[in-house]
Formats: sequence, structure tokens, C-alpha cells
Amino acid sequence: MSKWVYRFGQSGADGDATMRNLLGGKGANLAEMSNLGLPVPPGLTITTDVCTYFYDNDQNYPADLRDQVQQAISQIGEGVGRCFGDAANPLLVSVRSGGRASMPGMMDTVLNLGLNDDTVKGLIDLSDDPRFAFDSYRRFIQMYSDVVLGIEHHNFEEILEIFKEENGYILDTELDNEDWEGVVDKYKAKVVEHLGKAFPQDPDEQLWGAISAVFGSWQNARAVTYRRLHNIPDSWGTAVNVQAMVFGNMGSDSATGVAFTRNPSTGEKAFYGEFLENAQGEDVVAGIRTPQHLTKTAREESGASAPSMEEQMPAAFKELTQVFQKLEGHYSDMQDIEFTIQRGKLWMLQTRSGKRTAKAALKIAVDMAREGLISKEQAVARIDPEALDQLLHPTLDPDAERDVVTTGLPASPGAASGYVVFTADEAEQMRAQNKDVILVRIETSPEDIHGMHAAVGILTARGGMTSHAAVVARGMGRPCVSGAGGLRIDEAAGTFTCLGRTVGRGDLITVDGSTGQVMWGAVPTIKPELSGDFATVMEWADDLRELKIRTNAETPADVQVAREFGAEGIGLCRTEHMFFDADRILAVREMILARDEAGRREALAKILPMQRTDFEEIFKIMAGLPVTIRLLDPPLHEFLPKTREEIEEVADASGMDLERLRRRVTELHEFNPMLGHRGCRLGISYPEIYEMQARAIFEAAIAAGKSTGRAVVLEIMIPLVGMKAELDTLKKHIEQTAKTIETETGEKVSYLIGTMIELPRAALRAEEIAESAEFFSFGTNDLTQTTFGISRDDSTRFINDYLEKRIMERDPFVSIDEHGVGELIAIAAERGRQARPGIKLGICGEHGGDPDSIQFCQKMGLQYVSCSPYRVPIARLAAAQAKLKAQ
Amino acid sequence: MSKWVYRFGQSGADGDATMRNLLGGKGANLAEMSNLGLPVPPGLTITTDVCTYFYDNDQNYPADLRDQVQQAISQIGEGVGRCFGDAANPLLVSVRSGGRASMPGMMDTVLNLGLNDDTVKGLIDLSDDPRFAFDSYRRFIQMYSDVVLGIEHHNFEEILEIFKEENGYILDTELDNEDWEGVVDKYKAKVVEHLGKAFPQDPDEQLWGAISAVFGSWQNARAVTYRRLHNIPDSWGTAVNVQAMVFGNMGSDSATGVAFTRNPSTGEKAFYGEFLENAQGEDVVAGIRTPQHLTKTAREESGASAPSMEEQMPAAFKELTQVFQKLEGHYSDMQDIEFTIQRGKLWMLQTRSGKRTAKAALKIAVDMAREGLISKEQAVARIDPEALDQLLHPTLDPDAERDVVTTGLPASPGAASGYVVFTADEAEQMRAQNKDVILVRIETSPEDIHGMHAAVGILTARGGMTSHAAVVARGMGRPCVSGAGGLRIDEAAGTFTCLGRTVGRGDLITVDGSTGQVMWGAVPTIKPELSGDFATVMEWADDLRELKIRTNAETPADVQVAREFGAEGIGLCRTEHMFFDADRILAVREMILARDEAGRREALAKILPMQRTDFEEIFKIMAGLPVTIRLLDPPLHEFLPKTREEIEEVADASGMDLERLRRRVTELHEFNPMLGHRGCRLGISYPEIYEMQARAIFEAAIAAGKSTGRAVVLEIMIPLVGMKAELDTLKKHIEQTAKTIETETGEKVSYLIGTMIELPRAALRAEEIAESAEFFSFGTNDLTQTTFGISRDDSTRFINDYLEKRIMERDPFVSIDEHGVGELIAIAAERGRQARPGIKLGICGEHGGDPDSIQFCQKMGLQYVSCSPYRVPIARLAAAQAKLKAQ
Repeated sequence: MSKWVYRFGQSGADGDATMRNLLGGKGANLAEMSNLGLPVPPGLTITTDVCTYFYDNDQNYPADLRDQVQQAISQIGEGVGRCFGDAANPLLVSVRSGGRASMPGMMDTVLNLGLNDDTVKGLIDLSDDPRFAFDSYRRFIQMYSDVVLGIEHHNFEEILEIFKEENGYILDTELDNEDWEGVVDKYKAKVVEHLGKAFPQDPDEQLWGAISAVFGSWQNARAVTYRRLHNIPDSWGTAVNVQAMVFGNMGSDSATGVAFTRNPSTGEKAFYGEFLENAQGEDVVAGIRTPQHLTKTAREESGASAPSMEEQMPAAFKELTQVFQKLEGHYSDMQDIEFTIQRGKLWMLQTRSGKRTAKAALKIAVDMAREGLISKEQAVARIDPEALDQLLHPTLDPDAERDVVTTGLPASPGAASGYVVFTADEAEQMRAQNKDVILVRIETSPEDIHGMHAAVGILTARGGMTSHAAVVARGMGRPCVSGAGGLRIDEAAGTFTCLGRTVGRGDLITVDGSTGQVMWGAVPTIKPELSGDFATVMEWADDLRELKIRTNAETPADVQVAREFGAEGIGLCRTEHMFFDADRILAVREMILARDEAGRREALAKILPMQRTDFEEIFKIMAGLPVTIRLLDPPLHEFLPKTREEIEEVADASGMDLERLRRRVTELHEFNPMLGHRGCRLGISYPEIYEMQARAIFEAAIAAGKSTGRAVVLEIMIPLVGMKAELDTLKKHIEQTAKTIETETGEKVSYLIGTMIELPRAALRAEEIAESAEFFSFGTNDLTQTTFGISRDDSTRFINDYLEKRIMERDPFVSIDEHGVGELIAIAAERGRQARPGIKLGICGEHGGDPDSIQFCQKMGLQYVSCSPYRVPIARLAAAQAKLKAQ
Repeated sequence: MSKWVYRFGQSGADGDATMRNLLGGKGANLAEMSNLGLPVPPGLTITTDVCTYFYDNDQNYPADLRDQVQQAISQIGEGVGRCFGDAANPLLVSVRSGGRASMPGMMDTVLNLGLNDDTVKGLIDLSDDPRFAFDSYRRFIQMYSDVVLGIEHHNFEEILEIFKEENGYILDTELDNEDWEGVVDKYKAKVVEHLGKAFPQDPDEQLWGAISAVFGSWQNARAVTYRRLHNIPDSWGTAVNVQAMVFGNMGSDSATGVAFTRNPSTGEKAFYGEFLENAQGEDVVAGIRTPQHLTKTAREESGASAPSMEEQMPAAFKELTQVFQKLEGHYSDMQDIEFTIQRGKLWMLQTRSGKRTAKAALKIAVDMAREGLISKEQAVARIDPEALDQLLHPTLDPDAERDVVTTGLPASPGAASGYVVFTADEAEQMRAQNKDVILVRIETSPEDIHGMHAAVGILTARGGMTSHAAVVARGMGRPCVSGAGGLRIDEAAGTFTCLGRTVGRGDLITVDGSTGQVMWGAVPTIKPELSGDFATVMEWADDLRELKIRTNAETPADVQVAREFGAEGIGLCRTEHMFFDADRILAVREMILARDEAGRREALAKILPMQRTDFEEIFKIMAGLPVTIRLLDPPLHEFLPKTREEIEEVADASGMDLERLRRRVTELHEFNPMLGHRGCRLGISYPEIYEMQARAIFEAAIAAGKSTGRAVVLEIMIPLVGMKAELDTLKKHIEQTAKTIETETGEKVSYLIGTMIELPRAALRAEEIAESAEFFSFGTNDLTQTTFGISRDDSTRFINDYLEKRIMERDPFVSIDEHGVGELIAIAAERGRQARPGIKLGICGEHGGDPDSIQFCQKMGLQYVSCSPYRVPIARLAAAQAKLKAQ
């Protein structure tokens, strides 16, 4: 016989806190508190296995469940000296859901269950308070009808309002017991009106109705959506807790409240919470009465007049503080607690780890480690790396007024104010005049990069969280709101309209990339602070982690930011980003339009000194740390104008032959540029391009080495290799260039040559590729695209659909798909090591900043992850946690 | 000590025919003939290992090579009683290249080597014929200078011409010995003029010069290109044969000739060949004199007057026919032979398997099997499957005159004549008037499919052998010439120009897709004949093979052709091709433009009866054989117009709202459509599309089953699956549709649901996918695209470059890349079988018709391959050969 039901209460419990998966969070903690000897009203937990069984068996229960529940209810009754359904001495219970993770959208709570026209009389006798009994009964009818019978609560609230109006009452407390009895009758009539049958009087029917409502709510729309957004598997299921009622509404010596053992907003070590006298749980939530403070200090600080619990109920308060200390000591974490005081006696209804802000999380972790409550490892393990993102960017002053124009997707965190511009060139011009600008585009493309750099924030009408704008903005640390659907941009007129309002070029707006809000005017922001607890946690994390953290960056500004955030090298320096700068794009286009190699070499000669300067600056900032430079990757047509109008504009401005330009654009057009003439394929078709880049790199390395006195740790990376012969061909060219420069300068540069592993074939053929490659860097963006056959730029069309329908559990462009892409990484790592033991392995691409992916990298034994500058601290923490989990 | 040199000759040989890899084809066969006791002038073969050593060691030879050569040369001299370099009794030798495969572009032959100013006197004494001796000397100087010293032969031919003119001679035979001696002096002076030094007089220097020229020619441009085109690895290398000279130019009782043991053109069992009296080998090739026939019959048939060898030299002829019989019996194959008769004595200089036409190959194989010379298995193994292609299509009458306008790539075999049209719509209109048309386009796209169907041939200005036009034309069996570079199409004027000529709309032209030629006017063609030997070989192949052969086809016409070619089912019926028909595209576009599901369903209802009719016809033709239908695959924008002009045109013609059409085109635009919203992703976003298709399929199956009396063997295939959940979702919909139809009609349809494996992730997750998929069909086109990260449509840009630079050995879109894509197929097959033992596995996509890929499929244990109708016979034969090789 399976055990479907676990009991808990003052005499101990069947379960404990470790049984969270089976009993849910609430049930496991009720059991744990019972075992600790805390005053917990007795109850039972129906396990999550029953939920699974319920859905696997067409919403039927295991055969022996009813017996187990009945037996446990009897024991609860015995514990409190009552009997469920007994008219004279009725046991009343609450029914609550409780999964592994707390989850809004689930059926929450039914209180006072077991009341009916008979037992209410017993409750009158027992409490000697008919008003309390009828008040409890009417609450029960309303709650039960709402969550179990599907009759919305406003139906009942209306009845009460009308009753009060008719009788000239203002407050609920003005109703006497007969009034409440009358209200109960009207409530019952309302149920008949809705259902065509009476409110269930049989306590057993009530109980099973409530239990089924909990299990049923596991699959309601809100719960399903919540699970999708928070990656909670359907298979987890929920538990149901049935617990003997205690009453906070039994007079002025009764109360109910919620509390935190520390301040969840600041992390300060001080009890924090509120209570309501003579009230039941839902009154606190409902917000009809203003709750009172828990401590005297808090009351005084807020200037409130109503006495604190410390003052009003000193004995219960003292007991409560002892419970606080016991629980925090036991759980080694800040607790979020619910309690009830029934006629002066404290009862504990719930404890759990309290939610907190990022700032509070850091402070609590550091404080507790210093108090000796937890180890440094635990402190590090406890911080959600993603939450740090809040702290790394400027945020809007929470007290400032906001005039929200529209809301899009929170595509890149941080907030910024600036003047509206509509093109990348405008952005650069305004920036040159020291003006902050917000770049507003329908969507961005690689040609906008210089404008995105010049802007303090980006706003797009189209594109998802992984659109070009979003990815690039996150990489640069620029706030970005993408896919603001309501936006209509009229570039010609220099305006955009939104919800009927028009914003023009030069108008001041604020974007908040953390929330997706776009606001009129400049909203004040608060700067991030990275010292104190933040710095302490980072330091502890660095001591723990094995994975090195590098950054993906190519501008000196970004490289500098990354260094300050603790990057230990560059994992991906994308040389093509340097090609888009206004002063270079002309030479780049000349190169592309050249009729032959000689013409290309002529144009490349103009680019060489600029690339050399770029590299030299980067090498100087990263002195002594490794720098991985990827040679030119995108297809050449990305550097050319696209539309008829743009082509004419470029021809006009540059003096290039319009017809030739047009023809070249047509020639270079590709159906699937992602799978086209790019990456190392360019290097093979036009060896002179890679030769120029290699020369710029080597010359810069020699110069930077001299000026810093530290040799540059240089890694040259060949993109999009699928065949060993590609790498061999290009490696030979680069080595040749190195030799030429050695001969010219008499200086020897040391360097490694490696390759991206970003094609399935490269992963499969890693053994032979590693014979030539001195390192692998997993380009998981492209590897995900090719493994899934999904273009990231086009996937927003259907990926959301997939996530909603649960066809995908997670967006594979956000977190590495361990089963598909991950297997290719594992294959490549294993085969690469076979050919070259100890081969340097790392990952670049967006996944390098994703904590789950970082954990996967740790498991694969990679040496480093590389991510955008603003993700570096997140990666440092995540890497430490990954190491802890691996132990 | 390594053995670098192998001897052969009348006293036997060191090697034999099995040592082809080491000795080259020529050397191995000379050794084999020696062992058979045939009259072979003694000689030596320097092995291909020396060639490998030569290139591995900076063009140096193994230290002990010279000694081995010298020793062997001495032995050769001993055998014929001469001595190399001896002025009185000189041994003369020929030097010839000879690799594993015969290869034009290599240095071919130097004859009479060893002659110099001294030895020529010895030769006069020995032959008693000064004219012969000086003629031999001048031939040697010219040949050696040309192929070893790099002085082109026309330099010497000019000298001879001038000499003849000055002396009033017309024929070479008019020169006497002194004339020839004078010519030799002039030749030597020419060498001094070119090189600044004398023609080498040292026989050893001559010998090593010639040997090095052979090895050096292995890497000359022509040889490299030839190897690339014929997939001959660089690593094979060539051997060098040095052989004692015998002379066919020692008077009228001497001769030289070439012969085949059967007719290489028709396959007829009759000796076939020609000879020249008093001549050396190169005279036959040079074509200055008309050679005589070998047999009397041949002479009489051709009406020639010069006597045949049978008549002129009956003794030598008799000996030769005995050699023919011996060799054919020994090699069990038709032989291609070179011989020389020196003063009445027959010498064998070469034997090898003779090249033959496809028709001859079939006849010879069938005849030999019937003669008991070879087994049926050998007969089947011996036919080159690719060669069959010649026989399956109409060919140009070889006797007809051709006025060639231009030459492009031979993209799809066969020849056809028709009137020029420039658009698919025109093609359809003309076809409706029963006119044959040739569709001429810059390049084709999916919208042209109906026009390609309507045309009898296709000509494009752009695109390679794997361009859209080429692939689709091959699939349809339409002749196609692609990438005709010289073509300039002026669609507006309705003309194309080429090499200065203009061809207009409605002009009659002929395209020959087997050669790439485009001709003015209608050139008569010859119809293919598929009975007789062809049918016999096919029958034998069918008895042998294990792999089933299916076809990729969707029009009743194509399905019918495939059936006649022996297809055993349909492996890929692409339903989208049915969407492009002129009468449907409007409804398809309505569906795409619909605002909501209801609108889409309304449009789909119009397509349903048409799809049902399509399927019913196909099912009837394939009665009792399996039919795999792939649900809609391409992105929806493929069905919409693209350019501004086309959009306006469509809006005009269809009455659709221009703005809405334009917006939808923009919305649906994708950066990488190959990786976009297509395949099963469409079925998930718009379940109603697949539902309509499933309904059409099931209803057609019921109707066809009734009318043929044989149940349809139905396989429904879901494209582009990467995740099991995709398949599960769609499988449920299809099963639901089947149930609905069962309820409606009371008929039960049986069917399988399976999936394409065309994404790396699908291959890796094959085990879980096979839990739901009842069959796998490997879509190797897309699998190659994603595994390599190469778009087939865009790859012509660089794949040629890759092949030329030997970065790729073969185009992976032609032959499966066994190491990369192949490993994924192996993984998928293994994992698929793990979950579902005996799961049906097949391959569709172009590779299904490629013999090498078919061999791979046999190795993988697939059940069938599916290819375009015209490849079916090729696949049948290749499958039999694959099975034989596997044994």
C-alpha cells in the first residue's frame, strides 16, 4: 500500500523539510516545524504523487486515498479534541495547495471548512461567540463558492454591501450575530441561484470538493503560464495540506500576521512584518484594514500610531521572536512566516525562505556568513546570479514620477534618458556634440552598430529578446526596449506615434530596459554600486570557481568595462564590428567592389593601420591576459547597402559607380547568408583579407608588448571551420605572415591558432581538427542554429509558440540545449582531447553569460566562458555555483 | 632496402596485374602479360611509392633508386643483347607514365631514348638503315624537347616544313638519310637557341630527365584538374615505365597499331582496330596518315581500299588474334591493346580494359555472361551506373548538323528542341497550345516549377550543377543547361544574346543537357531504348540487390515514368509542388493572407478537393506499393510574389488588397528561410494546413483503395522535426483527423506516421523520436546543409573554389559526406533501432540517386533509397553493386 498521506502537528510529523518534492514546500516545512516542537496546528499533507496519479488516471484518485485521509482527519480531531462533521464538537480545517515551488495561479486557500447549518451551532457553543461563528460561516461560504464552485466572490460582497446599506452600517463590526446569520442565509440563496442546488452541507463532500479544486487548479491557464515562464515542469505536481483551523478572529486577544526574520528589501538584520488583531488570514491580504507593525522600532520609524505587536501583545511577541531565532538558526536563511494568535496562544501556519531584492540577498548572505550561520560557500550558492543584473546598471529612481508612453520587451537592462534620433548616423553626430541620444529603429541591423554605440539607449518597434538589437545592446551594456508593438515610426517625418501620442526627433525620452517601459522626458536614475557586499560576494566566488571568465568585446570602452567587472581576458573579439565604423566602411566597400586581388589589397592597405590601432589599444588594456581575436566572419554583403534607395545614397556619397555597386550587391545576394559565403570561407576565397588582419594583429602585439612590457597572450581564431583542410590552409597563411613580420621587424610573436566549433560537422570531426587547432571555442549561437536548423533572427515567429505549447521547455538561444547541442559539445571536447590532450576549450556566444549554460560548461570541463561585459559578474558568480554543484 | 623497381619481359616479371596500386595500370598489365608468356619487350616499372616519396621529400628520390634502375636497365640490355649508352650496340628505351587510373594531362611518352650523336651511328649499323636511324633520332629530339625540356613541338615542325618547302618535298618519305641528318642538326640548334645549351647527349641524363618529367607532370595544372573532376586522390601518385624499344618504323614488314577485342561503340563481338605500316606509335595518334583496318570484314564494310592487316600481314594477324583471345579470356573483359610489329615480329606494348559506350558496356556484359566468360554478378558489377544516364534520355542524332549558340553546364541529361519562352506562365500557355517550349531564365526559383513542367527543356544563365534549375530539372527528367555564362537575357525585349547572336521569343532552339550545348533550330534526336541488354542487366541487378528503390515524385506523369523505370514506391511526394499550380496558387495566397484561422480554413477548403485528386491519381498508379507523402514544407513566403513589381502584378490580377499583400510579404520575409518558419513548424503554427492535407490524403486513400481493389500503403511524413514533442503534437492531430474520417465514412485507413531526419538534432535525438516515429527518411539535402552550415543555393560561390584547392574531395551535395553527415546517419540509425527495432529507414533527397551514396546506404542497412524518376534504373544497378561490394 502506497503512503499518500503524511501527518504533522505538535506531536511530531511523518515527514520533514527534505521531503519537499513529495510534500511540497508548505507541507515539508509544516512537518519540519512540527519536528522542531513549534506550535503547529495538526494536519495532513496529500502528496504530489497523488497529483501525478490524478492526471495520469483521467482525474481519478488512488483507491486507498480516501481511507488514508479519513484516518488522518480522525487523528487530527483526536489531537485537538474535536471531530470532523460532529455537530456538537466540530473540527474545522483549512485546505491549501503547496507545490515544490510556490506558484501564483493555483487555488490558494479555503478556511473554516467543515462548517454547515449544524456544525455552526456547535462552533457557537464551543466559542461562546455566535457572531464569530456566523462570521466564520459566511467567510467559508464565500471562499468555498469562489474557489471550488466557481461563483465569483463579488456576488457575495455585493450582498454584504447592500445589507450594510439597508441597515445603515458602515463597518463589518457593526453587524451582530443575527445580522450575520441573515447574511449567511442570503449567501446560501445566492449559491442556489447560481448552481440550481444548495451549498454542500456534507463536510466530506466539502473536503473532497476543495481537494479536487487544488489538484484541478494545477492545470488552469494561469498556473500553466506561470510554470512556462519559470521553467517549472508539469510533472512536479502539487500537494494538498489539510490543517485544523486556529482562529485569529476570536476577539481582541486573537490576531493573524506575516513576518520576515530580516528586512527583505534592504537585508537589514531586524524583524519585519505586520499583523491584524481579531482577523483571519485573508483580511491581511485584502487590505481593507491597515495592519499594525510588528516591532516598536518599526512603528516609531514609520510614525504610525497604532501599537506594535511588541507593545500590544508582549508575551506572544516574545514567543514569536524566539520562534524567529529558532527557525533562522535551523534553516540558516531568512524566513517568511505566517502565524495566528488564538486567544493569546501563538500558532505557526507557515515558514519558508523569504523572497528578497538582489541588494538584500547580498547583504543577508554576507551578514550570515560573518555571523557564522552559513559558510562562504553557502553564501555564494544562495545568490541568484541573474538577480545581480539589477545591480549592474543604472536604475530609475523608484520615487520619480513616470509618464509611460509605451511598454515593450525588457531586452537589455538599465535605464537611460536621451534625445530621440532615428538613424545611426544622426546618433553619431549628436554624440559628437556631447548629447545623449536614444536610437529609435523599426529593427536594427549590423550597419547600425556605430549608432548603437553612440546612443545611451535603444528602442525598436520589432524583434524579440534575442533580436539583433537585444543581443547587441546586451553585449554593449546599453539599455534596450525591443518589440514595442504599438510604435509606428515615420522616419521621413522624424516622428513616432504610440497610443495616440507623437514623439519627434530631438524630444527627450527615457527607456528602462529592465521593465520595457518607455517614458516621456528624463526620469532620474540611480547609479549602480559595486563595492561592499557585492564586492565581498564576488571575491568569495572568485576563490571558489575553476572556470575562467572572459568577455566578448572589441571596443576599448567595452574592454575597459569588462576589465572593471573582472574579466580575465577576451574570449571573442569580433573584428568585423571594427569594419562598420564610419571612417572605415568606405575602404571596406572599396575592397568588396575591387575587380581583382590587387584592387582588394589596395583597399585593405587603408584598413590595416586602423585595425592595428584597434588591436593595440585592446592589447594594452588586457596586458598579460589572453585575447582571442576572431578573423572576419560575416558575409561581405553585410557591408553593402541593401535597398535601391540606400544603394543610390551610397553611390552618391562615395562617388562609386552606381551600376557597379548595384551589380555587386546583386552578385553577393544570398538566400541564406547564415549558411553562405562567410567565416573561413572568405579567408579561403580572399586570402588577402585574413593576411591583412593577421598583419594588423601581429604588428599591434609587438607594439603593445613593448609599451606595456608584458607579452600579449594572443589567440587567433578561425571562424566557421567544418573541415580540417580549411583550417590547415588558413593556418599556413597566418604562419607565413608571422614569419614575414619576424623577418621585417626582427621580433618574434608567440601566438596560438584555434578555431570556433560552431558547426555540427566541426564537432563530429573535432579529432582531426584538433590536430591543427591549438584551441577550440564553442560558438554556441551558430551551433544552436545549425543543430536545430533554426535561424535566430527568424525564430521569434514560432519559438514563442513552441514555448507556450510546451514543445520546447526553454529557448535554446538563451540556455544551451544540453541534449542536442550539448551532446555535440561533449563529442567535440572528447575527440578534441583525444588528438590534443589538454587542448584549451572555451565558449563564446550569448550562452557564456547564462548561469545554466555555465553549469553545463563546468560539467564539460571547459577552461573558460566568455560573455558580454555586463554579464561578467553574473558569470563569475554562476561559475562558482557551478563548481559547488559539481562537488 | 625498399624495392622501388619491378622488372618485366619475356622471361616473366617481378609483379602482376594485382599490383596496380604500386605499379600503375600500365606497369601491372605489362607484368601480367609477361607472366602469360606474351611477347613483351623487357622493361622496368618505377613504383608509385617513388612518386609519393618524391613529393614528400621536396622532389628528391630515395637514395637507392638510381642503383636499382641502373641494375634493371643492364638486365633489360642483357635480355635483348644491347647496352644502354653503348655507341656500337645501343639499347634504346621508351619512358611512359602510368598511374592507377589512366589520366590525360600527364606526361605521356618519350620514345627512342638513349639516342645521341654516337649511338645513332650504332643504330645505323644495327638496322642497316640510316634513314630509319636519323628519323628515330629527330623524333626523339622533338618529343624529349617538348615534354621534358619544355620547347613546344611546333618549333620543330616548322623546321621540317621549311626544309621540305625549300627542297620541294611534299611527303616525309621523300627525305633521304642525309636530309634527315640535316634536320637533326637544325633541331639541335633550335634546342641551343631555346635553352642556351646543347641537347643532352648523355643517355643517363636523358633517362633521369624523362623520369623526373613524368613525376613532375603529376602535379601540373591539367592533371590536377582532371583528378579533381574524377575524384582521383593526390596520394595515388604515378609509376614510370622504362621499356626496351621495338620499332614499327623499320620498313614495310613493320607496323604499329591499336585494337579492341570487341567493338567499343556497339559492343559487337568482333575485333576492332587499326594499324599503320612502317610507323611509330605517335603517327597513329597524329592522324597524318590514314590508318588501315584490322580485319577484312571491317575493311569491306567501310569500303576502304587499303588492305587490312588480316590481308597484308596474315601471320602477325593470326598471332594477334590468338593474343586477343588469350587476354580476353584471362582478364574476362574487353581489352584495349597497343602493339608493334618489328620486321614481322609481334610485340605487345599495352593491354587494359577498354573504354566503351554505355550501350556497348551492356551488350558486352550480357554477351560475356552468356558466353560463360563472366558470372551475372560480374556483369552487373561491371556497368558504370552513371553511364546508364546516357541511355535514359533522348540524345542528339550524332549525324545531325549542329549550329552551337553557346555551351553551359550539362545540368540535366537529355536533349530537346522547342520554342524559346522567358517566363513560366508563357511556358504554360504555349504548352496548352501543344507547342514544345524551352524555358530560358536567368535562374529559376520555386515559382517557376509549373513552367519547368510545361517546358521540354530548360536553359539558365546562372547556377551550377546543383542549382535550383539543375536539381529540379533532373528530378523531372527535363534536359537542362545551366550557368550558360555568355547569355544575356533581356526579358523586356523578349530576347537573349550570346556571342553576338540574338535569339528571340518563339525562336526554335535545341538544348543538350548531356553536353551543355545550346543549338540554333531543331536538331533531330534519337529515342532511348530500354529493352534488350538494358532490361536483362536490370533484371539481374534486381535479383541481386537488397535495397528497395523508390522515387521522389508528385505529378502523375512523373510517377508514371518512375513506375516504368521500376520504382517500387514513392519515397518522397512533396505536397508543396502541388500548391504552385496556376489554379491553386490563388487559394494558397488567400490562405496566407487570411486574418485568422477561420479565414485560413475557408481558403484551405478550396485546396482540399484538388489535393485529394492529386493523391488519388498517385495512389492508383502506385497501387499496392508504399507511398510516402511529406506534409507542407517550404516557408509560406515562397508562395507570395517578391519584388515590388510582382506584388503589384499579383494584387492587380487577383484583386487582393495591395497594401495587405505588401505588408504580409514584409512580415513573412526571413533572413535565412532555410532555417526559418517551415516544415513541421508550419504545422504547429497553423494546424489547419496539415489537417487539410491529412484529410485529402485519407479521403484519397479510401477512394483509390476502392477503385484499385488494393489498399494504399500509406506513410505520412512530417518534415524538419528536431524535437520529439513536435512530432507528438502533429501525430495527435493527424490521428484525430483519421478518426474523424473513420466516423464520417465508416472506412478505416491504415497508415504509418514517420519523420524526415534532416537536422543534426533529430539524428542525435533519434532514440526518443523513434518512440513516436514509425519510420525515418533521411533528408540528406537539408542534413548536409545544416551539418556543414552551407546553403546549397549559395554554395556555388565557393564550393568550386574548395574543390579546386582540394579542401573538399567531393561536393557533399552530390555524394554523401560519409565522415560528417554519414556519422549522423549512423547515429540516427543506431538510436532509432534501439527504440524501435526494425524501424523502417530510407533516404530521400538527391543523394538517393548517387551510386556512392547508395553504397553508403547499403552499409548503413537502410531498407530503401528514393531518387528522381530518371535516376531509378541507375539506383537499381548501383544497389545491386553495393550489395555485391558488401559481400
